[in-house]
Amino acid sequence: MPNLSEKSFAMPESPIRKLVPYAEAAKKAGRTVYHLNIGQPDIRTPKEVLDKMSNLNLEVVEYSHSAGFQSYRKGLAKYYNNLGISINYEDILITTGGSEAIIFAMQTCFNPGDQVIIPEPFYANYNGFAINAGLEVVPITTKIEEGFALPPVEEFEKMITPKTRGILICNPGNPTGCLYSEDELNVLKEIVKKHDLFLFSDEVYREFCYDGATATSALSLAGVEENVVVVDSVSKRYSMCGARVGALISKNKKLISTALKFGQARLSPPTFGQIAGEAALSTPASYFEEVSKEYIERRDILVKGLNKIEGVLCPSPKGAFYAIAKLPIDNADKFCQWILEEFHYENQTIMLAPATGFYATKGAGEQEVRIAYVLNKESLQKAVKCLEIALDQYPGRKLETVVQETQEI
Amino acid sequence: MPNLSEKSFAMPESPIRKLVPYAEAAKKAGRTVYHLNIGQPDIRTPKEVLDKMSNLNLEVVEYSHSAGFQSYRKGLAKYYNNLGISINYEDILITTGGSEAIIFAMQTCFNPGDQVIIPEPFYANYNGFAINAGLEVVPITTKIEEGFALPPVEEFEKMITPKTRGILICNPGNPTGCLYSEDELNVLKEIVKKHDLFLFSDEVYREFCYDGATATSALSLAGVEENVVVVDSVSKRYSMCGARVGALISKNKKLISTALKFGQARLSPPTFGQIAGEAALSTPASYFEEVSKEYIERRDILVKGLNKIEGVLCPSPKGAFYAIAKLPIDNADKFCQWILEEFHYENQTIMLAPATGFYATKGAGEQEVRIAYVLNKESLQKAVKCLEIALDQYPGRKLETVVQETQEI
Repeated sequence: MPNLSEKSFAMPESPIRKLVPYAEAAKKAGRTVYHLNIGQPDIRTPKEVLDKMSNLNLEVVEYSHSAGFQSYRKGLAKYYNNLGISINYEDILITTGGSEAIIFAMQTCFNPGDQVIIPEPFYANYNGFAINAGLEVVPITTKIEEGFALPPVEEFEKMITPKTRGILICNPGNPTGCLYSEDELNVLKEIVKKHDLFLFSDEVYREFCYDGATATSALSLAGVEENVVVVDSVSKRYSMCGARVGALISKNKKLISTALKFGQARLSPPTFGQIAGEAALSTPASYFEEVSKEYIERRDILVKGLNKIEGVLCPSPKGAFYAIAKLPIDNADKFCQWILEEFHYENQTIMLAPATGFYATKGAGEQEVRIAYVLNKESLQKAVKCLEIALDQYPGRKLETVVQETQEI
Repeated sequence: MPNLSEKSFAMPESPIRKLVPYAEAAKKAGRTVYHLNIGQPDIRTPKEVLDKMSNLNLEVVEYSHSAGFQSYRKGLAKYYNNLGISINYEDILITTGGSEAIIFAMQTCFNPGDQVIIPEPFYANYNGFAINAGLEVVPITTKIEEGFALPPVEEFEKMITPKTRGILICNPGNPTGCLYSEDELNVLKEIVKKHDLFLFSDEVYREFCYDGATATSALSLAGVEENVVVVDSVSKRYSMCGARVGALISKNKKLISTALKFGQARLSPPTFGQIAGEAALSTPASYFEEVSKEYIERRDILVKGLNKIEGVLCPSPKGAFYAIAKLPIDNADKFCQWILEEFHYENQTIMLAPATGFYATKGAGEQEVRIAYVLNKESLQKAVKCLEIALDQYPGRKLETVVQETQEI
């Protein structure tokens, strides 16, 4: 058989996927597995969407325009305008999920061999998209002890080489739950301006901000309009991950018209998903209030519960629905396998995502796990209890290390 | 502003897109424009699909598995088995349209700089996908006077270099309507085997074969199971282009598991579209019989009408719903613009796709246009009449050249 591409060997497997057989075995053994490993919310898709889908009245399921239905783009522009962001529908390209928006942006802006700086830990699939485009990911490490705050400007300056062409952030962040302040975004703005870089801002968790905070969009940064590309998606906002509808937004007209050429090659984003996305724009504020209340309650159960466990550090996330926790363990990959394979408490166990998959720096995050709080409160409480007992029983428990490291900061 | 990528300049614009403003101007001037330029069928999506979509009963629009819903993959495997193709559901990866299947296959199999031989004229978006993957398209020219038959093996051998890694065909063909015989496919099989190349076979028009012919799938070629990748899609088969659901199929297990890594990075193909695709598997044979009958009648109106016009050559397509016609003109791009901009007959005109966009060889296809017979018979008849009168009036009419070239063969 002919050889496969070099890229195909470089493509990482999902860090969670390796654990799937262990989770399946635990379920086969009759155990309840609490899935804290995935970003698939259990929240109901808005009624406005489901009603619309039941009343489609289509005769032919046609392509849309390659940039998406104009009515949907206009509706989305209005959504941004209501957030105080001055955007015209022509600045918006509808994509097949946020994923395709990142792929298009990378293909449009970067050449193979270019470097993109990404604060780590970061969404693991950025690696795959970068490999796809032949890019080099340059991680800039953020620390759990500092709540994953953006490093100071000097740290960024150290990373910049002649090959640096962009910075990619996720705000609010997956997997950290970190929400960048306006000051932090202004730091980025100055770097981007000084070195004429692209700033990709993945803002798919925009609606999920807690404790009175709101997300600042990179689109509102004055003076870098030509540099900023925002990635958006309906997946989490309306709990409709399966719609596969996202958007690429930029005030850089040349960038949008060029990205559209990549869009034309794949003809059209999904028609059903776009109809759902347009209907979702009518979701009432009360839906988000309820969802937000629910996530805050879940977060508090999780974070308070975790921080009570000896040796566990879990900063309270300001946004999204993930938290990173540092555990008193030797190795998160081993622990996440052990807890599925060897451990159970009252016939229950948990599936976590080892954080190593979210770091590009080898060895970073070895004691950390990502936890998605997408389960109901009762299950979350039971999952936290499971974790507490598991940490007590785990043969690779390493309490001292964590305490020392925390003290060093 | 930072520079865009080199790729983004190389990406071709759609050959039809340049004509859109002229079509819009003609419509604004109150003229009827017959769209023979697009592959968006007017055929009704099967009732089975539309009924299913009205009765979804979803609470949360979730991701599917990255390879697609297992029930859908199993249903598709059965569809292939019914065609006499021995395929297991694990050989199938559900993709976002046939487009994504080609993108995944290229990323999985080829390195930047690799060469792929494609019989031309070919589907114009293969260019975009190749640029995306950094591939060099090596065209092998097929001739309208030979009904676009596959060139003999010697012609292929001439094209093969150490960089050649694959051959890409579309069967039945867009834009030619050509259906490859088993003998032709066996020629390809021998080349692929001899040089250990990948054979990508885009079979999205499989159901549209006329005059008693049937399509032979590359999946049925014995001895090259590890080399063959089939691209499929629900778009044309069920007239649901907007569903954006396709498939990548190969008996090469390593290839499928590797392509899945690209699939994991983008999470999931569209959930709504997959539900529609699965429902479409229940479409009764009568639907296809009706559709086929309709397309044959349209084809005959078009082809017979065109060949009656002096200087026009239009081989009768054996499959798909496109035909290439050679016209007595100086230049198809000029003619297609002129007919929209300057010409009208009884307040009607037509939009055609210049065939130059379907050839990679510079200057090839300059007198040819692609015509999609996706209009009802009455409109098609009127469109053919329009073309006849336009050819008579066109200032760049060049009757002699066509006749000479035809005689040379």
